[in-house]
Amino acid sequence: MKRSFTNEDIDSFEQRYRAAFINSLSGYKSIALIGTIDRSGRTNLAIFNSFFHLGANPPLFGFVVRPDSVERHTWENIQETSFFTVNHIHEGIVTAAHQTSARYTRNQSEFTETGLTPEYKQGFIVPFVKESEIQIGAEFLESKKIERNGTIIVIAGIRSVYLPENCLRQDGLIELEKAGTITGSGIDSYHKATKIARLSYAKPGIIPKEIE
Amino acid sequence: MKRSFTNEDIDSFEQRYRAAFINSLSGYKSIALIGTIDRSGRTNLAIFNSFFHLGANPPLFGFVVRPDSVERHTWENIQETSFFTVNHIHEGIVTAAHQTSARYTRNQSEFTETGLTPEYKQGFIVPFVKESEIQIGAEFLESKKIERNGTIIVIAGIRSVYLPENCLRQDGLIELEKAGTITGSGIDSYHKATKIARLSYAKPGIIPKEIE
Repeated sequence: MKRSFTNEDIDSFEQRYRAAFINSLSGYKSIALIGTIDRSGRTNLAIFNSFFHLGANPPLFGFVVRPDSVERHTWENIQETSFFTVNHIHEGIVTAAHQTSARYTRNQSEFTETGLTPEYKQGFIVPFVKESEIQIGAEFLESKKIERNGTIIVIAGIRSVYLPENCLRQDGLIELEKAGTITGSGIDSYHKATKIARLSYAKPGIIPKEIE
Repeated sequence: MKRSFTNEDIDSFEQRYRAAFINSLSGYKSIALIGTIDRSGRTNLAIFNSFFHLGANPPLFGFVVRPDSVERHTWENIQETSFFTVNHIHEGIVTAAHQTSARYTRNQSEFTETGLTPEYKQGFIVPFVKESEIQIGAEFLESKKIERNGTIIVIAGIRSVYLPENCLRQDGLIELEKAGTITGSGIDSYHKATKIARLSYAKPGIIPKEIE
């Protein structure tokens, strides 16, 4: 038996209850650590849970920032330097990754505070997270302000990718389980994933088959 | 040992290889079936993999449409009637859900073609997917065109929610595993999730603890 909630029910929820409820409704989320640096060289690292694929050609993705939260340091740094890193999270660093959401000051780097290691790579000014198996160098391209709640959708391009050779299949698919990449739900829950199936390209009248 | 890819490497990928590669890079995705109806009452159902949480107060989410693809029927219907449904996917309907991505015509309903059951609920003109454990009634609010690749970010409000009573925790968190909600990666892979941990609110200098 299902329970139903109207718009008015949801509006009447206590604030933290509503945050937990609405944040879980969107399903499992892409989570990753965003690394940034400001003009004076101070680094920042923050967990985000709103990444979405925007296009493969050119390679684009998006994510959401809330400028009134701890996420503002990330957004300010991206506006200053245009470049940032996106670092997948595995089970071994989940506590440290979660801890980056604490309210540190500008002069405290989450790298130092959480024990994650900044890794500088040739040609990129922003540190990656050394412990991450899949690392992406990204460039800020544009932003869209959502006036109704003050959030900003950030659009970025993929400039470089680092991943374990054994995760990459011959047809370009990256096997996230092999890299240990985890997913998130709500505001504080973390999950492992296990493959159910990979399905063939869908055509009218033909039942999709498991591939490989 | 990691393998590295530059911007130029990615640009030189064969088209389908690049689509698989870039689509997997964004990590595990929120997937769900969007139900719509046009003015003349023809229904449509399509799988999307780009949902993101935009805010809890008011309850908002976003997703991406590609108007040059099979997704255009969904987008046209949303523009016509403003309302749509979002239906979580579990393992029992994964093949039918995937099959909704086939190129059906306007006069073929993916409900009929895939065997999923339209469920009409009082006060809402658009059918939900009866087989889905978590169902959301949504209202279109605004869209943001991304000129650089022709995609559209759709912003919507949550108007009603239906879910199994036993998935809802006392603090508002919805336990997606209990509802059997699955996640996606790449363009054709589906995964189950298993909880690793739920972590306490992060504060500087205090290591987050597992809660419950």
